[in-house]
Amino acid sequence: MTASLPVPAPHAPSARAAAERLAGLAVPAGALGRLGELGTWLSAVQGQVPPRPLDDVRLVIFAGDHGVARHGVSAYPPEITAAMVRTFVAGRAGVNALAGAHGVRVRVLDLGVDDDLDGLPPEVGEHKVRRGSGAIHLEDALTAAETAQALAAGRRVAEREVADGAQLLLSGDMGIGNTTPAAALVAAGLGLGAGDVAEVAGRGTGVDDAGLARKREVLGAALERAGERAADPVETLTALGSADLAASVGYVVGAAEAGVPVLLDGLMSVACALTAERIAPGTAAWCVAGHRSPEPAQTLALARLGLDPLLDLGMRLGEGSGAVAAVPLLRSAVALLNDVALLSDLGDLVPTDA
Amino acid sequence: MTASLPVPAPHAPSARAAAERLAGLAVPAGALGRLGELGTWLSAVQGQVPPRPLDDVRLVIFAGDHGVARHGVSAYPPEITAAMVRTFVAGRAGVNALAGAHGVRVRVLDLGVDDDLDGLPPEVGEHKVRRGSGAIHLEDALTAAETAQALAAGRRVAEREVADGAQLLLSGDMGIGNTTPAAALVAAGLGLGAGDVAEVAGRGTGVDDAGLARKREVLGAALERAGERAADPVETLTALGSADLAASVGYVVGAAEAGVPVLLDGLMSVACALTAERIAPGTAAWCVAGHRSPEPAQTLALARLGLDPLLDLGMRLGEGSGAVAAVPLLRSAVALLNDVALLSDLGDLVPTDA
Repeated sequence: MTASLPVPAPHAPSARAAAERLAGLAVPAGALGRLGELGTWLSAVQGQVPPRPLDDVRLVIFAGDHGVARHGVSAYPPEITAAMVRTFVAGRAGVNALAGAHGVRVRVLDLGVDDDLDGLPPEVGEHKVRRGSGAIHLEDALTAAETAQALAAGRRVAEREVADGAQLLLSGDMGIGNTTPAAALVAAGLGLGAGDVAEVAGRGTGVDDAGLARKREVLGAALERAGERAADPVETLTALGSADLAASVGYVVGAAEAGVPVLLDGLMSVACALTAERIAPGTAAWCVAGHRSPEPAQTLALARLGLDPLLDLGMRLGEGSGAVAAVPLLRSAVALLNDVALLSDLGDLVPTDA
Repeated sequence: MTASLPVPAPHAPSARAAAERLAGLAVPAGALGRLGELGTWLSAVQGQVPPRPLDDVRLVIFAGDHGVARHGVSAYPPEITAAMVRTFVAGRAGVNALAGAHGVRVRVLDLGVDDDLDGLPPEVGEHKVRRGSGAIHLEDALTAAETAQALAAGRRVAEREVADGAQLLLSGDMGIGNTTPAAALVAAGLGLGAGDVAEVAGRGTGVDDAGLARKREVLGAALERAGERAADPVETLTALGSADLAASVGYVVGAAEAGVPVLLDGLMSVACALTAERIAPGTAAWCVAGHRSPEPAQTLALARLGLDPLLDLGMRLGEGSGAVAAVPLLRSAVALLNDVALLSDLGDLVPTDA
């Protein structure tokens, strides 16, 4: 990926036309709340008023292992990553259940799982960069070439999904230990240093107090080690990220460049969107946030991106689950702008002094 | 309605079995957040683990006019009520759009619209109690006989929907001025008096400062007028309610008695659920809250009922819209408890030390 061309903004005339249509619907002004705003945004990203139905919605889960997982930052052993990739392929994970309920297609891609994943369909490993990314408190996560490769892979994945008809892309993650590099990406994106790690470190899948303390140490050491390189978003990925996170960054950039909106999930997804915005300013305007994570770094990153999540259900599953759970709200917004009567069409039904 | 037999609790053994199943799913403990809790609750109200899919979901909108609407408490003229009933029947209102998107059947019933609604299907007016309910700051909303009639009608409506296959009932409302009597029901339910009206009075569909002040005066006068009668829930409906609100109370009680769960909407729906709980203790255990209303009285009533809304999207449309928007979250909960692998079934996929 050649970094940093700004992404064109969504279509402002469509946003204005959608806001006008919204104001003309047979509902009190502002009564649709966030759903009205979402409808306006969907019109802008589609360049069409009212927005088209979201019939083709796709989630890509970027999977990878993280060297830090062997250093006490997670409640789960790293072997779970490969097992969960197999569970996604079998269609039996949490996010598969949600996706089945809401008509979302799911793909999982192994970018950096520390396992050969024998026996899985070859497309799962098609974009694999390496087995496991570096333990970021001790070494770089990736080489510069691997970062470029992962960014390009993610971008290509988005382009292909769009070419194949995707109207809305979701990004999900799988990787034991991944909240540590994701928190590091957020810290780097916000200009926080080793002294600020308490602000970004959360409990992930449920680490105990000792694990949380260890996670803070690891994050502090990683940020210290990265130093000034954290001021550059691509170098941030090399020093502090991972193959799966870098690919997820490329995917968000690719979607925005292709003019297709992205529905974000939890910390990993939002940390990657923040990094994508650093690489390609304007990307965030193509994003909407699905679910509030209990991870503090997600809230910080969302605030920086100017995004407010649609759901706050205390979920901390990852996998893209919070994004999938929010898909029906986007469909609600589409339905309202399409199907509600205009006051001007109601004729005799509504008194003219209303 | 003969008041006040307690409603049996949802099926505790199913709740326990669902919690066990939840704990055995291939997700970290607690990672499903509210969706996990919802799945457990759905198992309890259905008496079945995992819960059945929610294929038959129905919204009933109880419509009526309110004498207070002629006294400056609303941003809209009362004639809008009849016009909106026609819009629901035509399938062109906000809630129709949402219901279409999410497979929810909508019925509207005229309990007390101040219009003959000529030309609509006769079933719309089948349960009509009167044309307009009394202006509660000046007179009783209903006679005692009308209250009994409306409660019985609502209960019968729920029973019929259940007999016809409904697995989940939603309650919606339509009636210009209805946030005033609904706030009065909440005040009565919480034991608040004329001096406390600022706590329960909100801006409804968007009344200005002068309108809000007028609404507080009307509420204060109404509570003052009702006096000790507000301590009895049925007398509360006679003095401070309306035909449509009383029917909605009966509907919630009827659903709970029939063992069918209720997904609540905004202030009117929740004020009626609070009153239903006063009449038939135990009703609230069959209810879940769909959406946080900006109306302060809804938050107070929810807190009393121990319910926390699933959505908080700033919607203030009424009609049942917030409940319909939340239906996919209940379906998400069903899907998770049904379709996610059990750790015990994953076999070789997951290391046993996980």
